[in-house]
Amino acid sequence: MTKIPQNHPRYKSLIARNKLVEASNDGLLAQSAMIAHGRGEAFDYLLGEKTSESANLAIKEVAYRLKKSKKPIISVNGNTVVLAGEGLIRIAAVLKCPIEINLYYGTKDRVVKLLELLKAQQLKVSRELPPIGWTGNWPESVISVKILGQEEDGRIIGLEGPRSICSADGIQDADTILVPLEDGDRCEALVALGKVVLVIDLNPLSRTSRKASVTIVDEVGRAVGVLLDEIVNEKYIRNKWNNELILKDALEIISKSMEIF
Amino acid sequence: MTKIPQNHPRYKSLIARNKLVEASNDGLLAQSAMIAHGRGEAFDYLLGEKTSESANLAIKEVAYRLKKSKKPIISVNGNTVVLAGEGLIRIAAVLKCPIEINLYYGTKDRVVKLLELLKAQQLKVSRELPPIGWTGNWPESVISVKILGQEEDGRIIGLEGPRSICSADGIQDADTILVPLEDGDRCEALVALGKVVLVIDLNPLSRTSRKASVTIVDEVGRAVGVLLDEIVNEKYIRNKWNNELILKDALEIISKSMEIF
Repeated sequence: MTKIPQNHPRYKSLIARNKLVEASNDGLLAQSAMIAHGRGEAFDYLLGEKTSESANLAIKEVAYRLKKSKKPIISVNGNTVVLAGEGLIRIAAVLKCPIEINLYYGTKDRVVKLLELLKAQQLKVSRELPPIGWTGNWPESVISVKILGQEEDGRIIGLEGPRSICSADGIQDADTILVPLEDGDRCEALVALGKVVLVIDLNPLSRTSRKASVTIVDEVGRAVGVLLDEIVNEKYIRNKWNNELILKDALEIISKSMEIF
Repeated sequence: MTKIPQNHPRYKSLIARNKLVEASNDGLLAQSAMIAHGRGEAFDYLLGEKTSESANLAIKEVAYRLKKSKKPIISVNGNTVVLAGEGLIRIAAVLKCPIEINLYYGTKDRVVKLLELLKAQQLKVSRELPPIGWTGNWPESVISVKILGQEEDGRIIGLEGPRSICSADGIQDADTILVPLEDGDRCEALVALGKVVLVIDLNPLSRTSRKASVTIVDEVGRAVGVLLDEIVNEKYIRNKWNNELILKDALEIISKSMEIF
């Protein structure tokens, strides 16, 4: 792997890419995961590789919805674990909610490998200082986070075949799902079941972005860092939520990035 | 690999993706090749997955420049061979020019594997009917196409390290280079050497797109098909070339694709 100078203008993006390449070599990702990451890279590049004001607003709304939820869950796939696993464990520890490994193209082998990685991330996070503004027993809260995904005893009604499999005590039973990088079909099925579906997706035109209850149009690692802070230090005065306005703003940012000549 | 129904709205894009995944499994591609393909997919999606009128104009200009060139060459990397190898062999047969395998992150093993794939493609193309409008001995013309890349006896002045390696009788000596999917640094170095650099790049904002003599903003497989026809059946009345106008048009198409709400 090439060493990337820290002053490279796209340093974070290249570090994220390297993480993905390594995880792919270790068998943690589906075959199309790298291509999906590349698509995300292109959108992030067009969005200026930073969290926009409208994305910030969506993060606040997601924090609000997660906190008022009775049974929230965080659903992760391979790319999410690699790019934002530690941040999501922190969020799960604060919310006292489980994390479910739920793969679109899943194999038992990959679920086990991702579980191992999440367990290692969990141990690492448990040894850190708690997030600023949070009080309590941090190591205990982190280690208590349940990691689901091997049960396969639940179903997402409205989907067929392996894609419908989930944990009965996880996604099936949850009222609110934070699911970064979700597939369009599944997003739609979860919404149809009456669940609150909170997504992080760099493509404001994707079906996932357009079907979700709240869409954070931002890179997952960046968004998760801001989201944790927002959950711990609530400062949000909430109005009626209009997800379409958020998507429209992201499209305008991309559109403006085209005005260079 | 999932079977894709022929009536899928994004059938061609998904077929291309599968080809890349298979080639990657066979060790033909660099680690970041899939990510690069994903970036391309995102831009193609924003461009409507079709050859625009301005791309068509750029293809005509590229055909003109290749035909008037004294020493043209086609430079290919892994993704290019997988996505458009056969089409480029047809073009090389018509132009009577060599193809050079020239990799940004090259290994001898990958060069050999790509050479084998190109040879197989060459054999297949030699057994086809000639392109409509072309006359001559097609099998002989196809089999005569020289495939360079193992010589490593030339240098691209202005670059350092392995990236500077090329064939003395290929890129080093050529006056005009058709190089789909080129890296920005190399595009710049080739232009600085006074060569005519003709690129195919889906990102109209990339350094390659902006530095090239002529930029075809289109998917490589699609563009190469149109280019062959253009080379064989010249109908082009040429004006002064303004590459910036072409890039501006592509940016406008992307910008318009954002106006969906």
